[in-house]
Amino acid sequence: MSLEKLDSNKVFGGTLTKYTFVSESLGGLKSNLNVFLPPKSQEIKVPVLYYLAGLTCTEDNGAQKGHFFKAASENGLAIVFPDTSPRGAKIQGEDDAYDFGSGAGFYIDATKDPWSKNYRMYDHVTKELPRVISSSDLPIDTSKASILGHSMGGHGALTLYLKEPKLYRSASAFAPICNPTSCPWGQKAFQGYLQDGVQEGKLHDATELIRSIPPSERRLDILIDSGLDDKFYLSQQLLPERFQEAAREAGHDEQSVKIRLQPGYDHSCEARAILCPPLAPLCVSLTFFP
Amino acid sequence: MSLEKLDSNKVFGGTLTKYTFVSESLGGLKSNLNVFLPPKSQEIKVPVLYYLAGLTCTEDNGAQKGHFFKAASENGLAIVFPDTSPRGAKIQGEDDAYDFGSGAGFYIDATKDPWSKNYRMYDHVTKELPRVISSSDLPIDTSKASILGHSMGGHGALTLYLKEPKLYRSASAFAPICNPTSCPWGQKAFQGYLQDGVQEGKLHDATELIRSIPPSERRLDILIDSGLDDKFYLSQQLLPERFQEAAREAGHDEQSVKIRLQPGYDHSCEARAILCPPLAPLCVSLTFFP
Repeated sequence: MSLEKLDSNKVFGGTLTKYTFVSESLGGLKSNLNVFLPPKSQEIKVPVLYYLAGLTCTEDNGAQKGHFFKAASENGLAIVFPDTSPRGAKIQGEDDAYDFGSGAGFYIDATKDPWSKNYRMYDHVTKELPRVISSSDLPIDTSKASILGHSMGGHGALTLYLKEPKLYRSASAFAPICNPTSCPWGQKAFQGYLQDGVQEGKLHDATELIRSIPPSERRLDILIDSGLDDKFYLSQQLLPERFQEAAREAGHDEQSVKIRLQPGYDHSCEARAILCPPLAPLCVSLTFFP
Repeated sequence: MSLEKLDSNKVFGGTLTKYTFVSESLGGLKSNLNVFLPPKSQEIKVPVLYYLAGLTCTEDNGAQKGHFFKAASENGLAIVFPDTSPRGAKIQGEDDAYDFGSGAGFYIDATKDPWSKNYRMYDHVTKELPRVISSSDLPIDTSKASILGHSMGGHGALTLYLKEPKLYRSASAFAPICNPTSCPWGQKAFQGYLQDGVQEGKLHDATELIRSIPPSERRLDILIDSGLDDKFYLSQQLLPERFQEAAREAGHDEQSVKIRLQPGYDHSCEARAILCPPLAPLCVSLTFFP
């Protein structure tokens, strides 16, 4: 389970390193991740931000196109970029679609055969990665973590944050899928990966999840940035208003759940450039980005 | 010759737009470019930075991975990203190699058949693009321009700047090819594109060019950033020390020709992340990047 270094280079004063390891959570398949370490990590263990990428992506997209390193370097933050699914599970149909199987793990643990052996990205991100990082010699303090994602990875960031209050101090999401049980991408994924399909998918739906968390139980720290000229927003794959409405109904104020719908911006967090001031109000309790 | 808009999206408060047009300089082939406009361009015509990409790249690489837009947006600077060669000239062998033909125009005007009709990237960047931009309704003041490039595009930035004192106020280059007549990439390109091969290539070699420009004639403003862990530096494709030596011999001081050789950094300005603080001291005479 130890990390094997594949490649490393300096960037914005820090270091970006690609690792691979044999992932137990993914059924013994090899899995890659990129890790950015800021200069400050040479002195102390630094807090960490997990970045979850979207459909079709790998551990490289956010590292190459995310524009995060200058801010992370200046603010002493590590960033961990996992892959978006297992690779090479040799399941029939695994590579047939851009929105299911390889590159489309949806950050859930599949409960339906033949996917349930390998497609366990929830466990991979929430349990295995912190364990692997903590048992390595990486200067990262996994007890200080936040989570960020784009599109399918935004769905991942929101749901993992809502389900794991002890793991993450904040969640940020660019153009996230907010109500997957009500959109084609989410319905297809849940029907494919889960025994009880879309019904079971409600356990992994940010809009459903936030309904059941009263502010008295937990003060949330969520930021969503979504573009109004995003074709996936326009085709109702993202549905941020549903999440916003559910948050409001549950009693969360606009400071706890910030949703910015930005005219003129599209889905291109990774496709062409990032949507908004990167990481702007990411997390006051962890590391403050001005 | 007018610009046809293909795509546009907002990014860091500005706008990134992809255009295509029928390029006379490239023998009537269609050519693409990306143009970033900062918010300030809504009020006044803004200065422009040309970004020349490296081998295998297109107009998209710098726009997607360059990490330039936050700084450009804050500093009121447009960025123009041309392609790296003509496309679809239907010359035999055009697509056979990564370092010659398509994606490898070297920012020179070919003088050898069959390349000389279409492979005229020098003319394309120095004459046609400013003309096309000026005759469009883009809010860009092409009389205030600087030039930047990576690898083969760094060679382009240095040589275009040295040969066109009236066009560009500064040149910046990440991991540039500095002495192409002495390295395999440059020798192959010059032998292929130029009637008199490498000998003629001296007219397009930054190290040769800087020798003939005394400081009394022109105060230069050049910044080179190159990584010492760059495999192309190590395999002597880049040769920044040759350029440094020639600049010193010609009498240019280290303020006019700044060369930073950075331990730990590789060639990945575009491959994985940018090499150094982006655009840092790009150009004092044009727009100052802090």
